[in-house]
Amino acid sequence: MNIAEDLPKLGTAARLAANRLRDAGAYQRSEAIRAMAGEIRRARDQILAANAQDMAAATQLLDRLMLDEERVEAMAAAVEQIANLPDPVGAVIDRWTRPNGLDISRVRTPIGVIGMIYESRPNVTADAAAIALRSGNAIILRCGSEALNSCFAIYSAIQRALRYSGLTVPPVLFVPTTDRAAVGMMLDGLGGTIDLIIPRGGKALVERVSREARVPVLGHLEGVCHTYVHASADPQMAIDIVRNAKLRRISVCGATETLLIDAAVAPGLLPQIAGALDGCELRGDEFARSIVPMKEATEADWSTEYLAPILAVKVLGNLEQAVDHIGRYGTGHTEAIVAADTAAAEKFLAEVDSAIVIWNASTQFADGGEFGFGAEIGIATGKLHARGPVGPEQLTSFKYQLRGSGQVRP
Amino acid sequence: MNIAEDLPKLGTAARLAANRLRDAGAYQRSEAIRAMAGEIRRARDQILAANAQDMAAATQLLDRLMLDEERVEAMAAAVEQIANLPDPVGAVIDRWTRPNGLDISRVRTPIGVIGMIYESRPNVTADAAAIALRSGNAIILRCGSEALNSCFAIYSAIQRALRYSGLTVPPVLFVPTTDRAAVGMMLDGLGGTIDLIIPRGGKALVERVSREARVPVLGHLEGVCHTYVHASADPQMAIDIVRNAKLRRISVCGATETLLIDAAVAPGLLPQIAGALDGCELRGDEFARSIVPMKEATEADWSTEYLAPILAVKVLGNLEQAVDHIGRYGTGHTEAIVAADTAAAEKFLAEVDSAIVIWNASTQFADGGEFGFGAEIGIATGKLHARGPVGPEQLTSFKYQLRGSGQVRP
Repeated sequence: MNIAEDLPKLGTAARLAANRLRDAGAYQRSEAIRAMAGEIRRARDQILAANAQDMAAATQLLDRLMLDEERVEAMAAAVEQIANLPDPVGAVIDRWTRPNGLDISRVRTPIGVIGMIYESRPNVTADAAAIALRSGNAIILRCGSEALNSCFAIYSAIQRALRYSGLTVPPVLFVPTTDRAAVGMMLDGLGGTIDLIIPRGGKALVERVSREARVPVLGHLEGVCHTYVHASADPQMAIDIVRNAKLRRISVCGATETLLIDAAVAPGLLPQIAGALDGCELRGDEFARSIVPMKEATEADWSTEYLAPILAVKVLGNLEQAVDHIGRYGTGHTEAIVAADTAAAEKFLAEVDSAIVIWNASTQFADGGEFGFGAEIGIATGKLHARGPVGPEQLTSFKYQLRGSGQVRP
Repeated sequence: MNIAEDLPKLGTAARLAANRLRDAGAYQRSEAIRAMAGEIRRARDQILAANAQDMAAATQLLDRLMLDEERVEAMAAAVEQIANLPDPVGAVIDRWTRPNGLDISRVRTPIGVIGMIYESRPNVTADAAAIALRSGNAIILRCGSEALNSCFAIYSAIQRALRYSGLTVPPVLFVPTTDRAAVGMMLDGLGGTIDLIIPRGGKALVERVSREARVPVLGHLEGVCHTYVHASADPQMAIDIVRNAKLRRISVCGATETLLIDAAVAPGLLPQIAGALDGCELRGDEFARSIVPMKEATEADWSTEYLAPILAVKVLGNLEQAVDHIGRYGTGHTEAIVAADTAAAEKFLAEVDSAIVIWNASTQFADGGEFGFGAEIGIATGKLHARGPVGPEQLTSFKYQLRGSGQVRP
């Protein structure tokens, strides 16, 4: 691919596809997504062969890069689920009538063209394509070099499905090169054809995108999530929630990385929590270490997303200190309080400024599926446009439709 | 002001103010805004004296820069009106319960710190400060050099009001310099302290901001608005709407700049419309000129925001051509169709991708007040976060609050 010449053409094609897609109906979009699932299943062997190439070239063992029959089927099933979600385009969000009789509606519209820049998870190819199409958007996919063969094989299956579906201008496009200059051009908006960039991958990728992009970015920063055990917490509930929040799956962005616990209950409760965290390394402040023997936490521990069986532990004097600690070290992702005291819990829910704040449940509920969104493309930690789980609805804009009977403005 | 040293301090102060403002209640915000109105009234003579300085230094007659007693009173009254608007912070936008009993709410929150960069309208100082405060945001104001004395006098009145209001860290800050490097630093996010930039002014300013900003921008492009007279239009309604859309106020962004009219009715109707547009210069395509004598429209006319008594006129074969013309030359602001044919009107409302689309009413209804928003800081033409009139509600973000009873994720 000659990037300087061919990439802008990809942008133009995506813009044209986005314009055409507005005229396609919800039914046609559903059928196209369903066809994608079918073609992914049909292409299973090609996808696995391509993935074997990627795995052979990988310099380290990458679980997130690996595909097998089960994962290909899961990918197809996830796409099918998106085909069955309600189509958000055209939905009336709000409607009211003005005293002069003007009828005003706020109606969902597609955003246009999404630029998706992602790393080593091949299934993002299918997820992102399906969610974009569900919300009426065209999408330009740019995957990391380590996953290029796998992603291209999945994209090829998608392309076949779209060809059969009657969408004359295919709304899913793929950048078939590992040249990093392509990312720079996408971040520049590709000649005004990209409306929104979504990065998905490691910290370095997301930071580069946020720093360099000239178009809006729906960023997903790392999740340094906290669980705070208030003095009023039910002890058994605290133990169960902390164990689940940390250990259910350690590699998800909603996994708790720091435990905050009130000094009033730490001496009795922290040993029980530690006992329930089988195989988890604890790193604590001085107070915590005086209760349970553990490694010393350094300043860096408070802002580290371990994604590993490690938990930082801090003993606090009160709720205000917990809110301050989260404000200082958190990444605005997800934080939970365990408390029986309603006033304390409501204060926490009001004052902690994160995308998701939770009372008496695990931080691992930070997930679009658990919210009932059906699918998600990531969890946004910024405050503009979308925040929290990003599903099809969050990938729409809106417009105002005014219906009158000849009104002129005095 | 030493920009390199002092401007980052302003950013830090704004961030601190934003954090404190979250704890202030709606009542305290209302009182502070009301106090602002009072202090602006009390400072009338100082504001007018400062404005006289600006006017004396102005190199051209600037109606939008000029203040008099009436305009100062209008500014104070507008601020008072914002004090009476409902406070959006904490409002529950949506709430549902999951099968596992988790109760999920989506709740409005402030965005944080807004950077407002504007030109010669001094009243923006008061409007922007009041709308920001109403939505719980801190704001850093940076006005154009031609209005610096006027804006600083208004800001001083606001500062006094905030001092009396009990907000210990004042949430309205002002960049007291004409050095353009200050704008560059703000566009860079001022060390991560600015969450959102809102430009308000001429095309050159908005384009510079959109091009250079490293933080999200709520842009307001120019309004090249269209009124399309469909073949089915009631003739008298078409005449009334076109006249109002073009001439009621020629300098507002919602004023119609191009008239599109179906060829089937143009020979009979265009002469009547032209007759109703007293003192308005027409510039038409060949077909239009064959019906009514007028200047020839050049290619540039189709994309010009005149803000003057000039109207471009194009005769079209059908609705599709009107949609295409708007897609090609429009700025995504506001477009209207005049039609008796419901199907045609609904097609126009669905297919035209502008912030505001109108059936049988004047494009001059593109205004936050006319929508019932109470106040607006501008009309956003982008598709991310906000679109159309931007009032206090559009200057908020949201978070998810989850309330459980010990749920852990399987």
